[in-house]
Amino acid sequence: MQIELTEKPKNPIIIEGFPGFGLVGTITTEFLIKHLGAKQIGKIWSEDILPVAAVHESKIVEPLGIFYDKKHNLVIIHALSAVRGLEWKLSNSIIELSDMLKAKEIIILEAIGSEEQQSMKTFYYTSVESKKKSFEVCGMLPLKEGMVMGVTGALLLKKRDIISAFFIESHVGLGDSKAAAKIIEILDKYLGLKVDFKPLLKAAEEFEGALKKIIEKGQKAAVQKKRKELTYMG
Amino acid sequence: MQIELTEKPKNPIIIEGFPGFGLVGTITTEFLIKHLGAKQIGKIWSEDILPVAAVHESKIVEPLGIFYDKKHNLVIIHALSAVRGLEWKLSNSIIELSDMLKAKEIIILEAIGSEEQQSMKTFYYTSVESKKKSFEVCGMLPLKEGMVMGVTGALLLKKRDIISAFFIESHVGLGDSKAAAKIIEILDKYLGLKVDFKPLLKAAEEFEGALKKIIEKGQKAAVQKKRKELTYMG
Amino acid sequence: MQIELTEKPKNPIIIEGFPGFGLVGTITTEFLIKHLGAKQIGKIWSEDILPVAAVHESKIVEPLGIFYDKKHNLVIIHALSAVRGLEWKLSNSIIELSDMLKAKEIIILEAIGSEEQQSMKTFYYTSVESKKKSFEVCGMLPLKEGMVMGVTGALLLKKRDIISAFFIESHVGLGDSKAAAKIIEILDKYLGLKVDFKPLLKAAEEFEGALKKIIEKGQKAAVQKKRKELTYMG
Amino acid sequence: MQIELTEKPKNPIIIEGFPGFGLVGTITTEFLIKHLGAKQIGKIWSEDILPVAAVHESKIVEPLGIFYDKKHNLVIIHALSAVRGLEWKLSNSIIELSDMLKAKEIIILEAIGSEEQQSMKTFYYTSVESKKKSFEVCGMLPLKEGMVMGVTGALLLKKRDIISAFFIESHVGLGDSKAAAKIIEILDKYLGLKVDFKPLLKAAEEFEGALKKIIEKGQKAAVQKKRKELTYMG
Amino acid sequence: MQIELTEKPKNPIIIEGFPGFGLVGTITTEFLIKHLGAKQIGKIWSEDILPVAAVHESKIVEPLGIFYDKKHNLVIIHALSAVRGLEWKLSNSIIELSDMLKAKEIIILEAIGSEEQQSMKTFYYTSVESKKKSFEVCGMLPLKEGMVMGVTGALLLKKRDIISAFFIESHVGLGDSKAAAKIIEILDKYLGLKVDFKPLLKAAEEFEGALKKIIEKGQKAAVQKKRKELTYMG
Repeated sequence: MQIELTEKPKNPIIIEGFPGFGLVGTITTEFLIKHLGAKQIGKIWSEDILPVAAVHESKIVEPLGIFYDKKHNLVIIHALSAVRGLEWKLSNSIIELSDMLKAKEIIILEAIGSEEQQSMKTFYYTSVESKKKSFEVCGMLPLKEGMVMGVTGALLLKKRDIISAFFIESHVGLGDSKAAAKIIEILDKYLGLKVDFKPLLKAAEEFEGALKKIIEKGQKAAVQKKRKELTYMG
Repeated sequence: MQIELTEKPKNPIIIEGFPGFGLVGTITTEFLIKHLGAKQIGKIWSEDILPVAAVHESKIVEPLGIFYDKKHNLVIIHALSAVRGLEWKLSNSIIELSDMLKAKEIIILEAIGSEEQQSMKTFYYTSVESKKKSFEVCGMLPLKEGMVMGVTGALLLKKRDIISAFFIESHVGLGDSKAAAKIIEILDKYLGLKVDFKPLLKAAEEFEGALKKIIEKGQKAAVQKKRKELTYMG
Repeated sequence: MQIELTEKPKNPIIIEGFPGFGLVGTITTEFLIKHLGAKQIGKIWSEDILPVAAVHESKIVEPLGIFYDKKHNLVIIHALSAVRGLEWKLSNSIIELSDMLKAKEIIILEAIGSEEQQSMKTFYYTSVESKKKSFEVCGMLPLKEGMVMGVTGALLLKKRDIISAFFIESHVGLGDSKAAAKIIEILDKYLGLKVDFKPLLKAAEEFEGALKKIIEKGQKAAVQKKRKELTYMG
Repeated sequence: MQIELTEKPKNPIIIEGFPGFGLVGTITTEFLIKHLGAKQIGKIWSEDILPVAAVHESKIVEPLGIFYDKKHNLVIIHALSAVRGLEWKLSNSIIELSDMLKAKEIIILEAIGSEEQQSMKTFYYTSVESKKKSFEVCGMLPLKEGMVMGVTGALLLKKRDIISAFFIESHVGLGDSKAAAKIIEILDKYLGLKVDFKPLLKAAEEFEGALKKIIEKGQKAAVQKKRKELTYMG
Repeated sequence: MQIELTEKPKNPIIIEGFPGFGLVGTITTEFLIKHLGAKQIGKIWSEDILPVAAVHESKIVEPLGIFYDKKHNLVIIHALSAVRGLEWKLSNSIIELSDMLKAKEIIILEAIGSEEQQSMKTFYYTSVESKKKSFEVCGMLPLKEGMVMGVTGALLLKKRDIISAFFIESHVGLGDSKAAAKIIEILDKYLGLKVDFKPLLKAAEEFEGALKKIIEKGQKAAVQKKRKELTYMG
């Protein structure tokens, strides 16, 4: 894993969202980047990542892009790629980035499955006593019992002191864009981003639609490609 | 595998419980840690372990934590993570820890399956003749025939002279907290821990409930996450 | 991966077509090589490639051959081998070749699946603003949303500035030679190759037929061979 | 693979039996060790072996133990562990042991499947002309056609000059202890061990029973453990 | 892969037959070795090969034996082992052997599947113009289109100048010994071996019978062994 940066902001807050459950992490960071007008300042890179180039609005989207919003001093890690098997390596890269920039905080956005159909509760994890109050003011409950997997799990095991994890309940039947909107609402309260909420839900839905379209195309192509290759090489 | 220690007790007895059959090893060491007020003094660490962070009572639980009870000079290894494929490495780490601390004895707590529904016999293995008597006084039978797998199997093959293994029969249909309570009763007799037995069974049941809840959440999330990822990357 | 070259043209345009979806990339480069009378000047080579020698018109066809058309200063990479798992390595080799020859442009020919049965639209991707116009004049639309996999995906992620990717819609039910003919028509417009279009479609169909025959033979042999081997070694 | 020896007998005959078909090799060497009162003088050791400790008569049985019968100058390799994937390595260790002790002969005991239900023929393989006669006197037929797999196959390919392989037909439906008794009868004739045959069949049956019990327990535990682990880690 | 030779003939023709389709390569080289009275002068050896020792006429047959017929200066590579995954390595060893002996030609005997039930055509591949005529005189057709896999495919890609490949059509329903007899007939014409054809077909059939018997035994043993091992280790 390599980190490539064209700019090195000082003491930023890092926000990170991996596709994970319901693509909520990706939808949320995508929205933030657009809404805040954050610009790409680098990427995390490895040939262990799947060689898949996503095209979105006629531009190539990096599997693991690093963006910067100068106004709020936010570094946003936007992950489009599944990273199964690379969790430890990737968590090491994020910690390295955090050390390099002397980040004040790493905020992880993550969805968790919920059995209650109507519920969309949010939970937080922090090991810093003084932050608990402000997270609860934002409407989150402490996560009391749970298993956290993936890059988030790896980060919590390795660097828990600097990490604030926000978990939002999500449902397969329910639109994930709603979970993304909800988590941005909380992030807005916590960071004072002053997000204009009117167009947010609509935008989130549109992006979710676009993402789903990309994925469907990718899947169809993958399936047909696989069949052809099998035909071809026996 | 690395061992990280903030404190190095001298000549302790090491007690070790891996999840294994019915999670009995984990439930038992968890109970011991709480009951004795043992504090964490380190961990065994490797990126070969699955990147899963368990949250219990709003705190991150290490996959392989090392705890210390000063009063009885007990070092307790608390394992939350499955370690399939790492058995030899982990047994080496436990032997290294044992050598480092000049441990007097390693007590392994392990459940074994039983076909008799009502039975909850306990068995011991030791290669030290003089210990056999005292184990039988505590109510255990010698293990005559059996196959011991996992970290326990690896430890028995590598370091049998210092190891005392306690096996408790367990059943899928029966509450594992009962097996945990029984094995603590025997440990209490052997080590003279003076455990207050009244709240024990209740506590064990509660912890078992909490653990099951964590696991169910983990499973549900894992299943749904997997489906989503498949959807996402084709 | 090694590049072997007997000749090093200067500042060529590199055209590359991997079998991918519907074998369109391979059919198209094969046709170009024949039509332009390009001669083989080397190959990309690795023992990671499957050990399959294709015989075509009584000659061995390299899995990854490099051809040269002096008149138009075109280097054509002709790929017959599936390269799953080698995408990054192969993209590195193509970039290395491109650097070695100081190539002006890398044109990628790639088919993508389409759900519309009658459609055979063509799309382009380029990061160079000035090229967009000329691609649209040739009848292509910009690719707005999509997931590009394989060597093409890897190349787009690594070297997007020099790459022009042409995508043609293809269908399982429809003859792939038609897609190949269509993409050559566009390539002809863009590069001014002055291809004689009358015999093209016929030739493409013939080659597709030959290729399918090779593949069927290969498959039949593979299937029977596998059965025999299983019989043999138990 | 490492060989650990506490004693180095000179010019012994090495007898080796791997579990293989019907556990015959293991049952036979087990019986020999008991009957001859052979004592353990070492082990072959590797962390590539499965971490399974068998307990038999309240003692740990090494996966690959080396035993010595001084009276007949016999070294017996007793294998309890499946060694799939380690055949070459293990054959190298046995050859190393043989070289170290300047062994006169390596006798391999191996069962082979037979389609004839009532048949229990024995076969031999040797490359030494002078031994053929004495093997036939003992009641064995030459093995004319066959495929020998596993450690035995590896040994025959690497060190055929010193090896005498005894093969006994075995059946799934028939008691394997009978095959073991038969092969010991032949070994007795060949080596002049003067085995008391009366208790042999009974003992073989008993050991077979014990072994099956161990295995059943192991299996049950393994199956339940697996289910539990799956439950636990998702 | 290592080559072990006790003798180094100069400028021989190398004949090579891998089991491949219908075991034709193995049957043919086996017949040649017997008919010509060729003696073993070495082997190709690697622990990547499966540890399977074939016993044929009471002798161990090497997985990859090298034989020599002095009269015709022929080196025959006799392969009994499946070599899936080792194709490149093995082709390198054959090229190394060829270089070591300064071989004049490598003749590959290979069967290919055919859809026509009654057909038993033979095809050749050579890159040497002058040989084509003599191959056609022997009754072979040029191979125009096809996919050649395995060691033969690897050799054709690496060393095509020195290689003459003979392909014979074979059918699952038809006796492979007939295909072997046919290819020997052609080899006889090409090399002037003066093979006595009367006993050939009979001998080929007998060997095919023996080979099938070995294989059936191997399979049965393998299947039962696997079941037992599963029973044993859980």
